[in-house]
Amino acid sequence: MKSDVIIIGAGPAGLTAGIFTCRAGLKSICIEKLSIGGQASLSYDIANYPGFDSISGFDLTDKMAKQAEKNGLKFVWGTVNSLEKSKNGFVVKTANEIYNSKKVIIACGCKTRKLGLENEEKLTGRGISYCASCDGSFFKNKIVAVVGGGNTAIEDVEYLSRLAKKIFLINRSKHFKAGEFAVNNIKKLNNVEILTDAQVKKLYGNEKLEAILVNIDGNEVKYDIDGLFIAIGYEPDISFIKFDIKTNPAGYIIVDDNMHTSVKNLYACGDIISKDFRQIVVACADGAKAGNSCIGEK
Amino acid sequence: MKSDVIIIGAGPAGLTAGIFTCRAGLKSICIEKLSIGGQASLSYDIANYPGFDSISGFDLTDKMAKQAEKNGLKFVWGTVNSLEKSKNGFVVKTANEIYNSKKVIIACGCKTRKLGLENEEKLTGRGISYCASCDGSFFKNKIVAVVGGGNTAIEDVEYLSRLAKKIFLINRSKHFKAGEFAVNNIKKLNNVEILTDAQVKKLYGNEKLEAILVNIDGNEVKYDIDGLFIAIGYEPDISFIKFDIKTNPAGYIIVDDNMHTSVKNLYACGDIISKDFRQIVVACADGAKAGNSCIGEK
Repeated sequence: MKSDVIIIGAGPAGLTAGIFTCRAGLKSICIEKLSIGGQASLSYDIANYPGFDSISGFDLTDKMAKQAEKNGLKFVWGTVNSLEKSKNGFVVKTANEIYNSKKVIIACGCKTRKLGLENEEKLTGRGISYCASCDGSFFKNKIVAVVGGGNTAIEDVEYLSRLAKKIFLINRSKHFKAGEFAVNNIKKLNNVEILTDAQVKKLYGNEKLEAILVNIDGNEVKYDIDGLFIAIGYEPDISFIKFDIKTNPAGYIIVDDNMHTSVKNLYACGDIISKDFRQIVVACADGAKAGNSCIGEK
Repeated sequence: MKSDVIIIGAGPAGLTAGIFTCRAGLKSICIEKLSIGGQASLSYDIANYPGFDSISGFDLTDKMAKQAEKNGLKFVWGTVNSLEKSKNGFVVKTANEIYNSKKVIIACGCKTRKLGLENEEKLTGRGISYCASCDGSFFKNKIVAVVGGGNTAIEDVEYLSRLAKKIFLINRSKHFKAGEFAVNNIKKLNNVEILTDAQVKKLYGNEKLEAILVNIDGNEVKYDIDGLFIAIGYEPDISFIKFDIKTNPAGYIIVDDNMHTSVKNLYACGDIISKDFRQIVVACADGAKAGNSCIGEK
């Protein structure tokens, strides 16, 4: 199958890229392996995407997908096994189909790392969140816990400290991956309690999260909490790209301001790129820029 | 009046910044001189903002403003006469009020330069547009003209060449400000006609634009067209800032990836910053980043 542009991934970044390339008259195909909307579609309630004061991730990304389709974006289903260079551009292969295009936009997103506990998926959006700046304000004056020891976890604690009544920070080891300065700052906050050598072992609650069981240096303690923020990292996976591309040490694709990767006619946007701030509206803007860059170049 | 953050300007960038700072618990004030929504509110029909397949600029920015207000953003009216540094942050003065805050987000936008012709304002959104990548797709297979000789005008012609039946490029002089390579590229397009030493003198049409009168090297010629894209630049104005701040030669504020200006605790976002691609969704993402930077720093 041939097109002007192939977009890999149908999350907010890929969908917006499609809106922009289609509106400029480029024949565009979007390949998605799982479901429209990516990670964003799992959000129970989104309150910080400008234009909607409360909308589920499913509904928001469904609107974006219909909008992209109305503008001409064609969706196809399949897992991308390989992205290779060809004489005139790129070849993308899924199990059942081969796609050719001059330009490719990578918007495959990445997975948030899970704790791997029973009911974790079921309670996501019902007390469990993977994004403090998205969901923090639902926990005003409540008791929450943050899991992790890196920069994101520390930032989440700092963020939540202005909203929640009490925050437990649960870190697996005594050592923090985050900078010492940031860690010392949150130690000064009087509504923050830090648990080290600590691991969440069990989640309690049916309709919503009610408590967690934490193993602290060998002792099991149950904490009644309203919210659990899991900040143990993301998993970027671009093993399908069969040529060299510049990434940061963690494996995220490095792009310039206009979403060009280190490879000509190859663009990347959304959660798969190296950046500081992961939000739906930022992913959309990335997608718009990638689409626009695609349009403007021969 | 005192707050944690002052946001100057209530366009998409400022409104989104407010959504993010308020949701993080910072007391935030937004000062606007004219009307909610800025330039964006003037768009007749927005079709490329992800989530809405067709919405007026007024309605979209009204939704954003209500969302920001619901989250706690306080709007005040007035023209900012000065932004000065104080002992603990900044002082913002309007004719009637003095505002103090530790942090300021500049989201004042900038004006698109107008031709200054009779009925130009009335026909805006009714054939006249200042943004090809926003409105171009409304002119599929139609006859349009682009006014200007800089990079934006050339990019607009290139963009429209894939959509419109015929594009006239109207440039005031024989010389183009845009790069020679780009100009040569559009000269090769067979649906593009370039008029130099040419100036639009009159706009025809009541309910919508119907024709233009162009003076070409002394001769007046009437062209029947459906759309007129005016790309003669923007006017950034930050004369209210009473201290040094880094700008590019054209007067736009230089920011880093997270919207920090060269001045500590001062952020900028939206059309007033130096960037390549001006779109509502990009302004919103800028605002989200500015808000987030504001939150995270002491």
